[in-house]
Amino acid sequence: MKFDLTRRLAAEALGTCLLVATVVGSGIMADKLTGDVALALLGNTLPTGAILVVLITILGPVSGAHFNPAVSFAFLLRREIAAGTAGAYVLAQIAGGIIGAVVAHAMFELPLVQISLTERTGAAQWFAEVVAAFGLVFTVLAGIRFRSDAVPWLVGLYITAAYWFTASTSFANPAVAIGRAFTDTFSGIRPLDVPGFIVAELVGAALAALLAGWMFSEVRAARRVKAAE
Amino acid sequence: MKFDLTRRLAAEALGTCLLVATVVGSGIMADKLTGDVALALLGNTLPTGAILVVLITILGPVSGAHFNPAVSFAFLLRREIAAGTAGAYVLAQIAGGIIGAVVAHAMFELPLVQISLTERTGAAQWFAEVVAAFGLVFTVLAGIRFRSDAVPWLVGLYITAAYWFTASTSFANPAVAIGRAFTDTFSGIRPLDVPGFIVAELVGAALAALLAGWMFSEVRAARRVKAAE
Amino acid sequence: MKFDLTRRLAAEALGTCLLVATVVGSGIMADKLTGDVALALLGNTLPTGAILVVLITILGPVSGAHFNPAVSFAFLLRREIAAGTAGAYVLAQIAGGIIGAVVAHAMFELPLVQISLTERTGAAQWFAEVVAAFGLVFTVLAGIRFRSDAVPWLVGLYITAAYWFTASTSFANPAVAIGRAFTDTFSGIRPLDVPGFIVAELVGAALAALLAGWMFSEVRAARRVKAAE
Amino acid sequence: MKFDLTRRLAAEALGTCLLVATVVGSGIMADKLTGDVALALLGNTLPTGAILVVLITILGPVSGAHFNPAVSFAFLLRREIAAGTAGAYVLAQIAGGIIGAVVAHAMFELPLVQISLTERTGAAQWFAEVVAAFGLVFTVLAGIRFRSDAVPWLVGLYITAAYWFTASTSFANPAVAIGRAFTDTFSGIRPLDVPGFIVAELVGAALAALLAGWMFSEVRAARRVKAAE
Repeated sequence: MKFDLTRRLAAEALGTCLLVATVVGSGIMADKLTGDVALALLGNTLPTGAILVVLITILGPVSGAHFNPAVSFAFLLRREIAAGTAGAYVLAQIAGGIIGAVVAHAMFELPLVQISLTERTGAAQWFAEVVAAFGLVFTVLAGIRFRSDAVPWLVGLYITAAYWFTASTSFANPAVAIGRAFTDTFSGIRPLDVPGFIVAELVGAALAALLAGWMFSEVRAARRVKAAE
Repeated sequence: MKFDLTRRLAAEALGTCLLVATVVGSGIMADKLTGDVALALLGNTLPTGAILVVLITILGPVSGAHFNPAVSFAFLLRREIAAGTAGAYVLAQIAGGIIGAVVAHAMFELPLVQISLTERTGAAQWFAEVVAAFGLVFTVLAGIRFRSDAVPWLVGLYITAAYWFTASTSFANPAVAIGRAFTDTFSGIRPLDVPGFIVAELVGAALAALLAGWMFSEVRAARRVKAAE
Repeated sequence: MKFDLTRRLAAEALGTCLLVATVVGSGIMADKLTGDVALALLGNTLPTGAILVVLITILGPVSGAHFNPAVSFAFLLRREIAAGTAGAYVLAQIAGGIIGAVVAHAMFELPLVQISLTERTGAAQWFAEVVAAFGLVFTVLAGIRFRSDAVPWLVGLYITAAYWFTASTSFANPAVAIGRAFTDTFSGIRPLDVPGFIVAELVGAALAALLAGWMFSEVRAARRVKAAE
Repeated sequence: MKFDLTRRLAAEALGTCLLVATVVGSGIMADKLTGDVALALLGNTLPTGAILVVLITILGPVSGAHFNPAVSFAFLLRREIAAGTAGAYVLAQIAGGIIGAVVAHAMFELPLVQISLTERTGAAQWFAEVVAAFGLVFTVLAGIRFRSDAVPWLVGLYITAAYWFTASTSFANPAVAIGRAFTDTFSGIRPLDVPGFIVAELVGAALAALLAGWMFSEVRAARRVKAAE
């Protein structure tokens, strides 16, 4: 099954849009309904994990379902995507992410475009984002190699865990981080703090590509031997 | 495996009945046990998502497990169901939905037939229902095309997410909306507000059918070529 | 794979024991940690649903993983199990259920054998148990026919939903009901009220066997034709 | 697919590291956000169960994904792993577990190395750990025999249940217990109490190996006959 670039970019934009609409929308809903922040985070976590399983399953066959510049970057490092395609993917993801925040605001009768005031910065937050993106990209790469049919579940479950075990609640996604800069609600992030998150996420993605390259190399070697026989 | 229309309509009615009994019943239970509305919504969300996986898996082989006039409408638009059958399905779904509310009331010792007083109206709510039904029907259509065995999970997870990320808690289903008009409990909706929801849901379903028709067309074209070879 | 009766009975006893230990133990834990009853029910629901998926997957190949006299009764009605075997299964299930309550008490430093004082009776509760057991047995029978590999998941998800949508929190299992009569904690039931629950559960199971027999009959007929060709 | 010992040990260390980082990190996050201990335990449970599914799926093909000396011990008892390899695995697991606690502290800006003051001792706690480890190892052994593709899910779901139904919140893992001795947060355990937990866990693992050896023996016998034919 092969899809043209237009459809693939549409899939990347739509997927990232629905992902950010879920993150932002469920954050608004949860925050509105309870005063307990752990409960609000739970009401933010479960929808995000669930929608990731759905979106990766239904759009993966079209575009690969990156929805995340850090993932496209890792594939670029592994030379599994062309630089031009990766660039177009990233633009589609960012556009989708921003629209997703606007869609969430429209549903909740809030000002459509907002700028977040939520401070998320400092060495610990950046380290958390390195860990979060490392784990996400390593999960994707290992999943593709060993159980490609399970990747949607693996990503959904990984993010479900990472919302809680990382101090930054695991953005792990530059396009989502940019989208979340445009909402001054539960899940927002101050635009000023976005670059720090993006750098940390790309570092985590690169580390994951590096480690996966080493750890799974034996498999590739064995395959090459087998193919040569 | 082919089932006659009687059994298929029985499956549609039974499935929608158990779905609405779950939505209404778990709403009553959750609302009774806690004063925290986010927790009540969680106690409403998890059972709904879980029962959808079950019902679609066990009744899908009989009737296709629409349980939803918006889904039957999308199949009609795609000419994958006859108009007469679709009409009969919708009647069975509505009957099942109303009975489901009555069953829930009987279990909780409440007046069997009630009329909801909960206002759910306005442009933002309608937009939320367009988004909710668009996402649901797009998920169903994409799921059928790419991973038909996973459709029960996809629908269950999508609704789990949509209960939180849409401002309307994602009815996304005209038969369920009608059933919920007959309960004045946590999950109710004023009869007066049902038509607005139904129109929004059908619009969302049509948009999904349109987008899916375009986005996945290449696959169909490729298959036709392959079949012709 | 065939196992002798000793191993099958051991599997039924072990499975029901761990099931009741989970129901009772998680009820004690949840009740101890929070004053919010909805949250306690959630802390009771998730472990119960999860352990059911596990136990049915790992012991199903040995004994069929009934863990429930209502399920054995339905198979007896369908003549898929001999009366003597069904009787032995039920005794093993009841023994396992009682031991499960004792195990839970031992872990939580409570008196090992207790008698519940929690009243659970009346027409609405009985109707709820009819619905709960009907849904459970119908799920099992339909699951076995259409997606036998998914039965563990279907049962786990069904019970997750039924804990909330039935007014009785869905015992749906005579052996578990008897086991829960031996604990005066969150999940207990007064011994006096157990017979009413058991009758309701068997009625629900019989109705499910009846409906499944009718609804799926066409499939069997078609198979017979196919086999005869 | 065969991996050299270096890669397998790296996989064991990485997996146990991320597992403990998740247990400790989500405990810190949950504890910080709510005053309700049941909610905190829920915020600790869901990430732990989710990450187990992920880690076992992605690292299982490399090292078998033990991440747990009690599991390696059970395989040793069954002579399915060499003593030397098992020893190296255990050291890698312990090192990974301690590093996992440090990683969690770094993300949350806490002192990197801490010593827990949380008392977890006494006969009831030890009995709970026997039960917890018995259930875990029995699940792993039965899962491998009957549904090896489902083992990641079975373990994740079992631990999700065991966090609630055992009085000790189911450590069930000596390497994780040691790692958790190095954090004085929600999930910590006093170093003095670790040996009691470890002994209990190894007893539980041995009992599970014993029972599985007996209960599933018929299958092995049948296979031997079949292979001999």
